[in-house]
Amino acid sequence: MAEQAAQYSIGLDLGGTNLRAAAVDREGRILQLISRPTMAAEGREAILSAMAAAIQTLRAAQGTQTLAGIGIGLPGFIDADKGVVRNSNNLASLEDFPIREELSRQLNASVILENDANAAALGELWLGAGRGVDNLLLMTLGTGVGGGIIAGGQILRGAAGMAGEIGHITVVPGGNPCGCGNRGCLEKHASATAVSAMAQLMGLGPGLSGREVFDRAAAGDARAQRVFEAMGESLGIAMAALVNIFNFPLYLLGGGAAEAWEFFAPAMFAELKRRSFTYRATQTRVEKAELGAQAGLYGAAQLPWRITCS
Amino acid sequence: MAEQAAQYSIGLDLGGTNLRAAAVDREGRILQLISRPTMAAEGREAILSAMAAAIQTLRAAQGTQTLAGIGIGLPGFIDADKGVVRNSNNLASLEDFPIREELSRQLNASVILENDANAAALGELWLGAGRGVDNLLLMTLGTGVGGGIIAGGQILRGAAGMAGEIGHITVVPGGNPCGCGNRGCLEKHASATAVSAMAQLMGLGPGLSGREVFDRAAAGDARAQRVFEAMGESLGIAMAALVNIFNFPLYLLGGGAAEAWEFFAPAMFAELKRRSFTYRATQTRVEKAELGAQAGLYGAAQLPWRITCS
Repeated sequence: MAEQAAQYSIGLDLGGTNLRAAAVDREGRILQLISRPTMAAEGREAILSAMAAAIQTLRAAQGTQTLAGIGIGLPGFIDADKGVVRNSNNLASLEDFPIREELSRQLNASVILENDANAAALGELWLGAGRGVDNLLLMTLGTGVGGGIIAGGQILRGAAGMAGEIGHITVVPGGNPCGCGNRGCLEKHASATAVSAMAQLMGLGPGLSGREVFDRAAAGDARAQRVFEAMGESLGIAMAALVNIFNFPLYLLGGGAAEAWEFFAPAMFAELKRRSFTYRATQTRVEKAELGAQAGLYGAAQLPWRITCS
Repeated sequence: MAEQAAQYSIGLDLGGTNLRAAAVDREGRILQLISRPTMAAEGREAILSAMAAAIQTLRAAQGTQTLAGIGIGLPGFIDADKGVVRNSNNLASLEDFPIREELSRQLNASVILENDANAAALGELWLGAGRGVDNLLLMTLGTGVGGGIIAGGQILRGAAGMAGEIGHITVVPGGNPCGCGNRGCLEKHASATAVSAMAQLMGLGPGLSGREVFDRAAAGDARAQRVFEAMGESLGIAMAALVNIFNFPLYLLGGGAAEAWEFFAPAMFAELKRRSFTYRATQTRVEKAELGAQAGLYGAAQLPWRITCS
């Protein structure tokens, strides 16, 4: 069978601004990488053309090597049955369009769609901090807070592809309002955006980026340090719930705001220890993710291998 | 093979006070049921003898019919590799003893151990409110709050058999203290015990059982009704987190305190709607469990069928 002989797969990580695509071999070595604008502002056809062009360039360069398939990670809720994405804020023009069918037809290859946070979790499992593990949860701390969950080696997708919405766990019942309608969502108390808002409340000035607040903390500013401490407390409350619920061996923190680890981790672990006897009783690891922005690309590239070689 | 021809299985639900064992056929019909004291106070040998005797009585009655195996549900964390139970508060004498090996040897049959809440979730999946579903979470509201999670048809056990500790999700960060070391655990705000404590705080008197508070609420006592409203709010916060995390099609509430459904459900659903856009955007069902105390017995009885007929 062709699948047995497949020599590379293609992973594509579709963001609101840039897309990155790579030809990747069975061991996870990147054979070739392409990065280019997503063309989101120009609409659906432009995005699909950009994706197809990147993939075709990679295929041409691989010559007669056999392609296992194409995995695509993108933001939003994936309807795996229909091969469409729903509620993709940054790529609204793609919503409910049969992306998988269209690209599969254009490219004459099998295409698999996956939520970007799930793909990132898969990438960490394959080649990053989760190597050798079958169960992990990846929490991404960026503008918002996202999550990807792998249980028993399988991505936990949920009934409508909406599993892993960790950013909307309530950590402060009467806390900051969230666009989702709730108050006290984790992502309103522990994302880069939340760090910025808390810095303003601490009198550090409006509009500081998470990175700028980090720099202040690193320079010894106690108010900036207090902001990350509050972030860590909220993370600890959510993490304790997740440890109690899943009893996984490994929980990873990724995304840009995870770079402030040294400032939020002590408070996070203090809450986690206090709020989870499972954490205290077991060898649960809570660590930084390793692959950064590459995690989603690697995870996307692994999707075809998972189907053909399970 | 013998498994193909198996005509019944035996389920045993081991509680701190009573054990119940049943011979059950492939369709879930109870062929015979035995209920007897667990003999917990008399120590390990007495418990094991009580279990073995009940099982042998059932086997004798089934004559030459072929036994698929024996499933046992019991409180505590199950180490599936070793066939032992850990941290079983009500059955401390069984902790770390090779129950599976010992009973399997005595009875010359295959024995499977499972946590009682997981077994109950399995029972509801097989014959109760979860028929036809592959993913569900069962929350049991009793003296404490427990949970059993079935994802993709498989019990979610976690690395140390400790998954599903839903009762220790933080719902009120600075709330009531819990024996686990945390404050504001769900089970300190939404169990029968919590209902009793809140009733005291509302001036209804000390030592009322959950049932008595329910009777007051049913008689129109506004303070008792307010207690269940508070219980419902805490349940809603936890349930919203669980819906956001799993996006399962079905969440069930069982246990004695679930009988107060009419008094806590309105507040629970109000919180759930507010705190979970996944709930608002999908057809998520949150319902009462159907099998009551039989759920764990049925689930235990299904364990051997799951192994031999998957």
